[in-house]
Amino acid sequence: VTIRQPYLLFVGPARDFHGAKTAAGIRYWRPERCIGQWRSSPQSFDLGLPDLSFEAAAARGAATLVIGLAPVGGAIAPDWIPLFEAALDAGLDLAAGMHQRIGDIELLRLKATRLGRQIHDVRQPTRAFPVGTGRKRRGKRLLTVGTDCAVGKMYSTLAIERKLRARGCNATFRATGQTGLMIAGEGVCVDAIVADFIAGAVEWLTPDADEGHWDVIEGQGSLFHPGYAGVSLGLLHGAQPDAIVLCHDAGRSRIDGLPDYPLPDLRECIDLNLALGARTNPAIRCVGISANTARLSDAEAEAWMRSTGERLGLPCVDPVRTGVAPLVDALLS
Amino acid sequence: VTIRQPYLLFVGPARDFHGAKTAAGIRYWRPERCIGQWRSSPQSFDLGLPDLSFEAAAARGAATLVIGLAPVGGAIAPDWIPLFEAALDAGLDLAAGMHQRIGDIELLRLKATRLGRQIHDVRQPTRAFPVGTGRKRRGKRLLTVGTDCAVGKMYSTLAIERKLRARGCNATFRATGQTGLMIAGEGVCVDAIVADFIAGAVEWLTPDADEGHWDVIEGQGSLFHPGYAGVSLGLLHGAQPDAIVLCHDAGRSRIDGLPDYPLPDLRECIDLNLALGARTNPAIRCVGISANTARLSDAEAEAWMRSTGERLGLPCVDPVRTGVAPLVDALLS
Repeated sequence: VTIRQPYLLFVGPARDFHGAKTAAGIRYWRPERCIGQWRSSPQSFDLGLPDLSFEAAAARGAATLVIGLAPVGGAIAPDWIPLFEAALDAGLDLAAGMHQRIGDIELLRLKATRLGRQIHDVRQPTRAFPVGTGRKRRGKRLLTVGTDCAVGKMYSTLAIERKLRARGCNATFRATGQTGLMIAGEGVCVDAIVADFIAGAVEWLTPDADEGHWDVIEGQGSLFHPGYAGVSLGLLHGAQPDAIVLCHDAGRSRIDGLPDYPLPDLRECIDLNLALGARTNPAIRCVGISANTARLSDAEAEAWMRSTGERLGLPCVDPVRTGVAPLVDALLS
Repeated sequence: VTIRQPYLLFVGPARDFHGAKTAAGIRYWRPERCIGQWRSSPQSFDLGLPDLSFEAAAARGAATLVIGLAPVGGAIAPDWIPLFEAALDAGLDLAAGMHQRIGDIELLRLKATRLGRQIHDVRQPTRAFPVGTGRKRRGKRLLTVGTDCAVGKMYSTLAIERKLRARGCNATFRATGQTGLMIAGEGVCVDAIVADFIAGAVEWLTPDADEGHWDVIEGQGSLFHPGYAGVSLGLLHGAQPDAIVLCHDAGRSRIDGLPDYPLPDLRECIDLNLALGARTNPAIRCVGISANTARLSDAEAEAWMRSTGERLGLPCVDPVRTGVAPLVDALLS
């Protein structure tokens, strides 16, 4: 993926952090690439960047409009299309990580071709993958797993990679989702792979490595999510992790958007991931909990992390409030 | 899917039943559609049909060459392409259920267009699917699950549907694989769906139905298969089965093609399917075992079925040797 920088981040109508997840992730982890945001209205989520028109962004040097929304199902809203047309007219390339391809919208494809602009649909696999074999690979692997979608798996994974490197470890972030891929510049969106090849694609993504090397692999979905569990299991088998970190939103009790589905108990979620993960790596272990406690007060968050850690006998952190050092300590111990 | 009949079945170089799985399934369940076979050599698997050249088959009225092989990964061997060209020249349409699309091979696509022939790539989804929601649907559902691939799930499912109908029940076979789809004439190849939509595609495939109606759903893979488990879990969640039947090859102890992976114990396999299936249908239960005992003698098979049934406390049949009546008894009790 070679997306021209810097970026204008398209927030569009997204009202909250979840809706603008991709834009917010790029803004946080790669601030040097982002020169502005485009929002449909002042009620849209604010990334803390200048609001720029397409023309103003182009005049300031923006090269690409990055679609920063992450809607369920990954479809492009019809009323975004004239906006993307205008962005092409203003001189910007387009980059998106939706299931629906911008490049499949004829109007946009033809205009981009005519104007000499690039369209990047990063969620689409650019190669074929083999069926997974479960063959044991050299090197070490950590995978983040979750009680649900959108609980901080990518953030936790990037924070763990950064901390491992700070400790002098050889570590590589392995992106498995659209935002992670735009941050890393490479990776595989495992939720967009043909189903037979999920595990095989992950085996390809995290190949044999030196014994001391850690692949730090971004998790997806949850084994308890009625829509996405297949992706999560294929990813778990293909990653054959030596270590998992459980990610959780401490303020959530139901699967996001599916109120009939309670979140699993954290112990139950760890145990199921270990039981299923042992199929391809019998040495799998859980090294801790990475929680998003943003909806709790400081005192509540501290109490929640302490009691959860004691109950489960594992380090429990919030990567934003406390950092992930205790997880890396447990990993390297 | 409207594939013109009757068929010439392409066995090609496949040496055994597994390799010619699709051809053998169509031959067994839809014999009235099959007028001949095309084999690369006398060592190829024999379906018990006349060996016909493409020209001879066309002269006898064959309308379509159906590619009857089911290789891992679903790729088309390069040396089949001139054969398929010759079939088009002889007047036949082409139908296949591979991951690789015949219609993507330019030589064949152009020739088919020029000659007015049809090419059917039945594994490819012909519509978009939503993300699964886990919403409880009306009507009853049975799903076959397995200790491995290629253990008789499709055969068992079709036999159960036939027996349910013979008992006067309203039942519908729901095809989820290439062979099942060619037999049923409709269905969804769940292993070819984009991974995010596996469960959603199955929800679409088995919609709300009358309370007394049984959808009898073909299973795929195994929760214990390091390559395919993601498909199996998405299918299990999307099917939300009231009943499962465990399919197993009584002569097999290792995952087919992966000697480092032992098959799970049958009890363990049932328990994991029930534990994970309960997420979308807490009333899930196992109604029996459907075993392929072809590699055992009559006496060995009888002893194996009796001891397995007693150990697990469930009816245990071989759908070929004994039929599936005990499973249907348990289902309707």
